[in-house]
Amino acid sequence: MGWGDLGVFGEPSKETPNLDVMAAQGMLFPNFYTANPLCSPSRAALLTGRLPVRNGFYTTNAHARNAYTPQEIVGGISQDEILLPELLKKKDYVSKIIGKWHLGHRSQYLPLKHGFDEWFGSPNCHFGPYNNSVRPNIPVYNNSEMTGRYYEEFEINVKTGESNLTQIYLKEGLDFISQQATAQRPFFLYWAPDATHSPVYASERFLGKSQRGRYGDAVMELDDSIGQILAHLVSLGIHNNTLVFFTSDNGAAVMSGAHQSGSNGPFLCGKETTFEGGMREPAIAWWPGRIPAGTVSYQLASVMDLFSTSLSVTGVLPPDDRVIDGLDLSPVLFNNSLLDRPIFYYRGNQMMAVRIGQYKVHYWTWSNSWEEYNTGINFCPGQEVPGVTTHTQEEHTMQPLIFHLGQDPGERYPISVQSEEYRDVHRQVTAVVEQHQKDLIPGMPQLNILCDFSVTAKLSLFCAMNALEDCLGSQ
Amino acid sequence: MGWGDLGVFGEPSKETPNLDVMAAQGMLFPNFYTANPLCSPSRAALLTGRLPVRNGFYTTNAHARNAYTPQEIVGGISQDEILLPELLKKKDYVSKIIGKWHLGHRSQYLPLKHGFDEWFGSPNCHFGPYNNSVRPNIPVYNNSEMTGRYYEEFEINVKTGESNLTQIYLKEGLDFISQQATAQRPFFLYWAPDATHSPVYASERFLGKSQRGRYGDAVMELDDSIGQILAHLVSLGIHNNTLVFFTSDNGAAVMSGAHQSGSNGPFLCGKETTFEGGMREPAIAWWPGRIPAGTVSYQLASVMDLFSTSLSVTGVLPPDDRVIDGLDLSPVLFNNSLLDRPIFYYRGNQMMAVRIGQYKVHYWTWSNSWEEYNTGINFCPGQEVPGVTTHTQEEHTMQPLIFHLGQDPGERYPISVQSEEYRDVHRQVTAVVEQHQKDLIPGMPQLNILCDFSVTAKLSLFCAMNALEDCLGSQ
Repeated sequence: MGWGDLGVFGEPSKETPNLDVMAAQGMLFPNFYTANPLCSPSRAALLTGRLPVRNGFYTTNAHARNAYTPQEIVGGISQDEILLPELLKKKDYVSKIIGKWHLGHRSQYLPLKHGFDEWFGSPNCHFGPYNNSVRPNIPVYNNSEMTGRYYEEFEINVKTGESNLTQIYLKEGLDFISQQATAQRPFFLYWAPDATHSPVYASERFLGKSQRGRYGDAVMELDDSIGQILAHLVSLGIHNNTLVFFTSDNGAAVMSGAHQSGSNGPFLCGKETTFEGGMREPAIAWWPGRIPAGTVSYQLASVMDLFSTSLSVTGVLPPDDRVIDGLDLSPVLFNNSLLDRPIFYYRGNQMMAVRIGQYKVHYWTWSNSWEEYNTGINFCPGQEVPGVTTHTQEEHTMQPLIFHLGQDPGERYPISVQSEEYRDVHRQVTAVVEQHQKDLIPGMPQLNILCDFSVTAKLSLFCAMNALEDCLGSQ
Repeated sequence: MGWGDLGVFGEPSKETPNLDVMAAQGMLFPNFYTANPLCSPSRAALLTGRLPVRNGFYTTNAHARNAYTPQEIVGGISQDEILLPELLKKKDYVSKIIGKWHLGHRSQYLPLKHGFDEWFGSPNCHFGPYNNSVRPNIPVYNNSEMTGRYYEEFEINVKTGESNLTQIYLKEGLDFISQQATAQRPFFLYWAPDATHSPVYASERFLGKSQRGRYGDAVMELDDSIGQILAHLVSLGIHNNTLVFFTSDNGAAVMSGAHQSGSNGPFLCGKETTFEGGMREPAIAWWPGRIPAGTVSYQLASVMDLFSTSLSVTGVLPPDDRVIDGLDLSPVLFNNSLLDRPIFYYRGNQMMAVRIGQYKVHYWTWSNSWEEYNTGINFCPGQEVPGVTTHTQEEHTMQPLIFHLGQDPGERYPISVQSEEYRDVHRQVTAVVEQHQKDLIPGMPQLNILCDFSVTAKLSLFCAMNALEDCLGSQ
């Protein structure tokens, strides 16, 4: 889902009444970022509070290439990483993930091995189907048991777009909440549906209801589900004791065409890129009685902050043996403070850009390769900023491109290198980047070259590269 | 001001709290249009309820070229047109215009000759300065007396962007409202400030306050002013008896660069074009007690509807001797009805496109000429849709480009001409267009070739064409 898919962020059809009310009752973050413009590394960052380059969710075999965990890759989240639910156990939190995991599909990587007590969902995205003996469809798990597969027991009609999956995930979520409320147990629910991921789906009640087509139907169903989850918390009387945060894992996949694409609002490009359309996310915090209603926070915030903030509000100390990139947003949420911090935009193993204050400084620019572009895959349809949305990887390290995102959210007008403004920003950001790079010890890359075709592991570079191409191409 | 300049329409800085509250207390129109993507014809349409091609605010001397009333053109609103304030006199309404008139600067065209009882403002936009004996600065009128000139008695510091003009216009507005309330006279106030028009200005209290730079400062001051006007109506106790409508005359002038441009949100291109960015406008209706609070109307609506709706709510019959393009929105405002109607997108004398329902059908495409583009004037910066944002005038009459604006608000993905959807829409729209063209009797073009240099009328084609180029280039 993209920044621009919410009514409160200007989607013209205004079809997210529940999220808009959530914002009116909570705090809206227009400057909220993911840690990588692709699913797996973004989710690994959410759960570890660390940049993918630290937690290992990147590759070193192709410069600036994002990587994830397609069904063919054997890598996954390292045993050395400490995930949020593991830490929350110290305070007896029960944790459940519902929906897409995406941190590795081999048994040692699955959620129950990394701190979650319960899981209903799939290790990977629902796209496919693979549906043959060599590449079976993606499994759906109920805890540690496979309970079926997408397109088989869990139907998705690619032609009509009908699927009950979001309703199934919703019921799982409501039931989990009820159980914990009844048992008076503290809980962490990571509700991660994937209805807006191509191939987009919705259940019968929502199909055809949106002005935006099937993608809008999926958004409406997610919006409705979130409304039901919030209402359920209220009906159980635990809303004053529950922090709810809504966000997305990357910008809308605008390469997916008219029928499967979301909106990144006024921002440039989308998923896979480090332009604002790929990295800036819709974000709303909700906690009646604690977070002041109807506030807008301009805090530069990140998906990694959810790790640190969750620890803070539950009274758990973060690990002290590693760098944590997340920031504790408590002062923001409860006192509307503004904390000084940079945002780093990584694409694979390459830091492409940095934001400090209103300024974004691009050290590398790239949309996608001419080779891929010429096959019809366009990361920036309808958008072209000369020298910015480049189809070759362009290094600007010596003289970065600098934009003022308040005046120029669409990254169209680089600030003149001859201006004092440019020199001031360049000087400030250089210090920030030097500090970041000095402290940076990259984690062992987990998504490099190992892969299998489901059952039989076939270790070959050909296979790995093929899988990587496949993930970039098929999203 | 553009569609995307309001927080409620997704401007990331969210700096229009008063307009956002106005929307929360009233009705928001995401599908509201101007009648022409340029100032003068848009305002002529507002006050006459008629398309510019009917009311004469167009040219026939250059195909698809928008025209307005620069200081050099002697044309203006025809005596044959009936303006809203003339009709409201039948119910004893006192009418005042504050700010920019733009329907002609010669004495016979001025507001007091066309139904307004009072005027404080200028016949033309504040850009310039001309400031020499041949081309003096734009005058500012207090009723029929010139009370000074821009850049002289009414200062605008182009370098700092400081000007008190919006505060002066605000005070004029509040005073007028107070006077009518005291006298218990019904009134029509046409409050038409121009702070967001390049060169953008704001008063000292707002300068430097926005995250968006000077343009944002101007928006904040307008937003604050509107908040004060609404609060004044409430404090006078006349809010339950006053319809307030907020809108803009054309899309944001994105050709004006990073510091003077507004935002058209997710829409394509801007001012001067018949893409959504040029024609779709922010729009909010407010009437506590009559218009249900916090509603969104998907009605396809137009600036010309304000003419018809104003007549309807005041109980005045519209003229029956001419075609009125405006629609009475009362059923929409008071009962949230949806009325079936097309939107016609004109550029100068050429119908470029038509919207019916969610479908927009382009018969002609054009951004601006290669010649102009190559001088650095770009009507679609950062945006390029091959075959759509063309730099030559492209006729598609035989096989129009059709977009679904719900699924594709950015006009990026023409619907396949081979699809049933295309054929259905094409058939429907053809009937609508044939009816429109059958009934269309163009008015006498008022903005064709006459011009003067202020005092001495010099009738020459050179002069006229020069003036037209000047207006296109200097906005």
